[in-house]
Amino acid sequence: MTRMNRILTTAALAFLPVAAVAQEAAEAVEVAPTFDEIGPYLMTTLLFLIGGFLVFWMAAGFAMLEAGLVRSKNVTMQLMKNIALFSIAAVMYWLIGFNLMYPGDGWIVSGWVGTLFAPTALEPVGLSAGAASLDYASVASDFFFQLMFCATTASIVSGTLAERIKLWPFLFFVVILTGFIYPIEASWQWGGGWLSEIGFSDFAGSTLVHAAGGFAALAGAIVLGPRIGKYRDGRTNPMPGSNLALATLGTFILWLGWFGFNGGSQLAAGTVGDITDVGRIFANTNAAAAGGAIAALILTQVMYKKPDLTMVLNGALAGLVSITAEPLMPTLGGATLIGAIGGVIVVLAVPMLDRMKIDDVVGAIPVHLFAGIWGTLAVPLSNDGTSFVTQFIGVAAVGIFVFVVSMIVWLILKAAGGIRVSEEAEITGLDVAELGMEAYPEFSKA
Amino acid sequence: MTRMNRILTTAALAFLPVAAVAQEAAEAVEVAPTFDEIGPYLMTTLLFLIGGFLVFWMAAGFAMLEAGLVRSKNVTMQLMKNIALFSIAAVMYWLIGFNLMYPGDGWIVSGWVGTLFAPTALEPVGLSAGAASLDYASVASDFFFQLMFCATTASIVSGTLAERIKLWPFLFFVVILTGFIYPIEASWQWGGGWLSEIGFSDFAGSTLVHAAGGFAALAGAIVLGPRIGKYRDGRTNPMPGSNLALATLGTFILWLGWFGFNGGSQLAAGTVGDITDVGRIFANTNAAAAGGAIAALILTQVMYKKPDLTMVLNGALAGLVSITAEPLMPTLGGATLIGAIGGVIVVLAVPMLDRMKIDDVVGAIPVHLFAGIWGTLAVPLSNDGTSFVTQFIGVAAVGIFVFVVSMIVWLILKAAGGIRVSEEAEITGLDVAELGMEAYPEFSKA
Amino acid sequence: MTRMNRILTTAALAFLPVAAVAQEAAEAVEVAPTFDEIGPYLMTTLLFLIGGFLVFWMAAGFAMLEAGLVRSKNVTMQLMKNIALFSIAAVMYWLIGFNLMYPGDGWIVSGWVGTLFAPTALEPVGLSAGAASLDYASVASDFFFQLMFCATTASIVSGTLAERIKLWPFLFFVVILTGFIYPIEASWQWGGGWLSEIGFSDFAGSTLVHAAGGFAALAGAIVLGPRIGKYRDGRTNPMPGSNLALATLGTFILWLGWFGFNGGSQLAAGTVGDITDVGRIFANTNAAAAGGAIAALILTQVMYKKPDLTMVLNGALAGLVSITAEPLMPTLGGATLIGAIGGVIVVLAVPMLDRMKIDDVVGAIPVHLFAGIWGTLAVPLSNDGTSFVTQFIGVAAVGIFVFVVSMIVWLILKAAGGIRVSEEAEITGLDVAELGMEAYPEFSKA
Repeated sequence: MTRMNRILTTAALAFLPVAAVAQEAAEAVEVAPTFDEIGPYLMTTLLFLIGGFLVFWMAAGFAMLEAGLVRSKNVTMQLMKNIALFSIAAVMYWLIGFNLMYPGDGWIVSGWVGTLFAPTALEPVGLSAGAASLDYASVASDFFFQLMFCATTASIVSGTLAERIKLWPFLFFVVILTGFIYPIEASWQWGGGWLSEIGFSDFAGSTLVHAAGGFAALAGAIVLGPRIGKYRDGRTNPMPGSNLALATLGTFILWLGWFGFNGGSQLAAGTVGDITDVGRIFANTNAAAAGGAIAALILTQVMYKKPDLTMVLNGALAGLVSITAEPLMPTLGGATLIGAIGGVIVVLAVPMLDRMKIDDVVGAIPVHLFAGIWGTLAVPLSNDGTSFVTQFIGVAAVGIFVFVVSMIVWLILKAAGGIRVSEEAEITGLDVAELGMEAYPEFSKA
Repeated sequence: MTRMNRILTTAALAFLPVAAVAQEAAEAVEVAPTFDEIGPYLMTTLLFLIGGFLVFWMAAGFAMLEAGLVRSKNVTMQLMKNIALFSIAAVMYWLIGFNLMYPGDGWIVSGWVGTLFAPTALEPVGLSAGAASLDYASVASDFFFQLMFCATTASIVSGTLAERIKLWPFLFFVVILTGFIYPIEASWQWGGGWLSEIGFSDFAGSTLVHAAGGFAALAGAIVLGPRIGKYRDGRTNPMPGSNLALATLGTFILWLGWFGFNGGSQLAAGTVGDITDVGRIFANTNAAAAGGAIAALILTQVMYKKPDLTMVLNGALAGLVSITAEPLMPTLGGATLIGAIGGVIVVLAVPMLDRMKIDDVVGAIPVHLFAGIWGTLAVPLSNDGTSFVTQFIGVAAVGIFVFVVSMIVWLILKAAGGIRVSEEAEITGLDVAELGMEAYPEFSKA
Repeated sequence: MTRMNRILTTAALAFLPVAAVAQEAAEAVEVAPTFDEIGPYLMTTLLFLIGGFLVFWMAAGFAMLEAGLVRSKNVTMQLMKNIALFSIAAVMYWLIGFNLMYPGDGWIVSGWVGTLFAPTALEPVGLSAGAASLDYASVASDFFFQLMFCATTASIVSGTLAERIKLWPFLFFVVILTGFIYPIEASWQWGGGWLSEIGFSDFAGSTLVHAAGGFAALAGAIVLGPRIGKYRDGRTNPMPGSNLALATLGTFILWLGWFGFNGGSQLAAGTVGDITDVGRIFANTNAAAAGGAIAALILTQVMYKKPDLTMVLNGALAGLVSITAEPLMPTLGGATLIGAIGGVIVVLAVPMLDRMKIDDVVGAIPVHLFAGIWGTLAVPLSNDGTSFVTQFIGVAAVGIFVFVVSMIVWLILKAAGGIRVSEEAEITGLDVAELGMEAYPEFSKA
């Protein structure tokens, strides 16, 4: 932050042209590039950084949404899981995930499994431009951006399994999910693997992030079983969230973060075409969220005579998930409609899951898995270069892989030491029983 | 998010020069523009996107502020109204508002009423640059940014009318406000209509957004009447907000969003002059908020011997509203003073409204209407190109139009089916009575 | 916001080249610069604005963190202090701080004390580019960015002294801290003073902001004494925070804001080297926070058998503080480790302070002071151009100056009228006793 020093210290490196940096960093100092040559690099790096901090913010959104939708006796635990899972994702994605997901030429099984262990080493200061043959933006900014997607996948799981899963087995699952499961399936498409070869299209991750998280959550919910008292005598017992203001805040945070999630996934902002596309993606992303919220509002009014706020929140989120596979090609009207169908799916799916006695505390499976599948299958409606069959193959492949591997991990964890807290702890609440700390110690319970 | 694919697919379009895109998109591919030619387009589009997501965030700010200032029995309803009104604004501004507000040559009544029904159609991918003769930034980014202002206008109304208005009539009013009332009055100035012809000046909307929202809220408050028990035996009965932490969070969110609101309204960031102005606007916006907060802090200490947090929050917001008409020309000291006067206005106006038995639950009329008028009339103090008379004409014209049309709509809604919940529902609380869902179901009431 | 007007009005000024602006603004209009010439200015100004609004957001983070960690009877006061201190910082930094911190050639005591009273006057519209010989970015954007650091220093103090300090003496201390103490010690390094001359290195302020705030808080805590009942019969009585959801939200806000804090401190974004460095800083900042959180998670599990959420939150913050002195040079693994050690320091230091009967309500001294010192001393581990001795001198000098001056101010305030509320007020709670307003009036206390 010294005006004088800082500029002097980096000046020499700073004016290196991108290409020269890659090839002969040390000697190239004499040639200063024109802004014309480096402009796209600067703009795209900036897009990654802005997009990245917006998607980071989604971690707070999930934390608030989930803390608001669980009962007050489990709020501290839900907050703990959310900050811990994000931190673990950050470490695992550095240690393993990033290079497993983007192996370049380093596939172990070509198109299927990338480099298994290669911690991300960012190039020395001011020189990372040319690293890893990625010369259109800084590698560090790209790493920062992609890491946030990995963490998002884990955030989805924590909501579904709330109020009954033990902390450490959950965090162990996060290690596997963020270090291996997500990077491997994402590499199939975004790392240039077999799904990208066959023409699968998933712009920002309706399937690769959201449905994947949903499949991992579904496997966990099946192994874990429902909360005590949730399904009794053939009836579903509502367990209302303790703080809807927090849940609404979480939804708004996620909505905001999604502009970075989808907009940043353009992966370029240095040309008229690219930045124009980013603008279109922002507008469409917003339209889809609005469509999902309105659809859920109207549908719950019609079905239940009373609009349901938690459904409206999840409707907005389902709209966002739905447009994530293709936020660029639809018209504003199309995006609104795609989002609205996502909202309808959530309203119909939540009671359906309850009938199946799959206890998804926050509705993450309808929002991320079902709307994610819908969004992925809807891509061919606006994108001529894609086919329904290929989209279906992609969803099925990711789904089977994530679900089966997750199921195996959950079953191993269950066998190894159990993943569920004791009945007594569940009834008391995880906060007191597991953590010895209440989230709202002074607010007496009704 | 595929590094490889994405770049290849958009590369052809991406390097089109802005002008060529507008004229002959298909053939022009061979000529790559220099960054020198496209730089301003990129920077201004980025300004719209950053400004837009910051103003979007204000929707969350209003939701938190209002949820914190209503009693806990009405929190779910207030959250519902806020997410629903934003979603409706998004749809109406797409369907009608944007082209009604910016008619170009398509005025129905020249300078007064634009194109009545023309849903916004963004140009095809990578080509929207030249659409609608707007070649200095992407149309989608501009739409995204402007939409947020429309939604803000509606957010202002929801706070004033809280705790007693029915959901659906309120949302119907939002349809009219965001689809017609706001776009028409805003077109008079920002669409190049008659107010801009006579030299009215309202940089980012002290009048066009904030006072307009305040006038619509005032009409509603008069038709709706005060809450039961608010004014009794000649005394004003305080009804304290249920969660001041949430209200403070909402204020900070609005303060943050306002950097986008005012800064983005520079509408350009691609030259030294423009980005320098944006910087000045950021600094002045912050100074005005600080001035408003400090003025309210000192004034409530002097008047009541105890500083009043809700007044300090509203003082900061009033400072922000006050500087919105002219955030560029004042000095830092001038901006602080303009904001401080806004803060004083709020502290004095809140009890005045109570004496008039106008029940404004969150203080939105003092903050947005009164401080908005003050800010608009203060423009000539720092901007030589404006006159007090013209500023007054603008405020009066927007005020009369918005107030009268809003009043008519409210009266029609009242006659058609009523806008107010039953006395019983109001006493029980809208959450249980109207929505069947409490915001804090476990926190027992004092 | 008028598309047409705005562009015309600023067009003439807008195309001025940066250098020409500095020298002969009025005449130079005829020569339009190429984007190549102005690109770095635009990008760096944008970095300041984005960095600035992110660091602004940290004010909300501190408010939420502290409001969540105090007991519910003191929440309104804590919110009041946070919004008031930020507003006061904004005014003092304009009136005195900015030019005292960056005196240019205007030192009163060379390298030690800058210009004592020179309110910041931003240059006229569109011309501020060349002001104060700062021609690499807009002065206003730089002022905006630097102001936020000043406010941060004050935010640190409010947490430590919560639940027992009077409002007005606290705010008076903020006046001195933000107007004089912080700007003077920061000028030693960032204003080009004696610390920068001897080679001290503190990239974004582990010492200059965080340890400084911590030293001011420590002096205050010693003068103020612990809360009633905190230390009794040789035992430390836990006084749990009233709202851990809010505290977690505050932590996530701070984490987000820190990308601006550290990333913006690169102070340049217009070259490949600079924006690449900003990317690296973002990635390292995130890694350090994750390391701090995980370290605190594991260590509290090991030490207490139950992981402690407040320690994990403070661990993440300590990680952020630790990396702030040198977020650029470490590898990702190094940054994770530096942050992790910060997390360990917090877990060990909190009970140590309690044994010393220094009552730090939110743990700000371990987080900002201890981790700040650690981060500063750790710079030579990754930055060859620095030495442990020089780092130590910097910490000691800043520490002695801030601690001694703060102590004197606190003692004067204590003598002048007292800084502590009455015993009765403390037991009742500051909200009712001092402000007559509860933060959660409807939630009955357990």
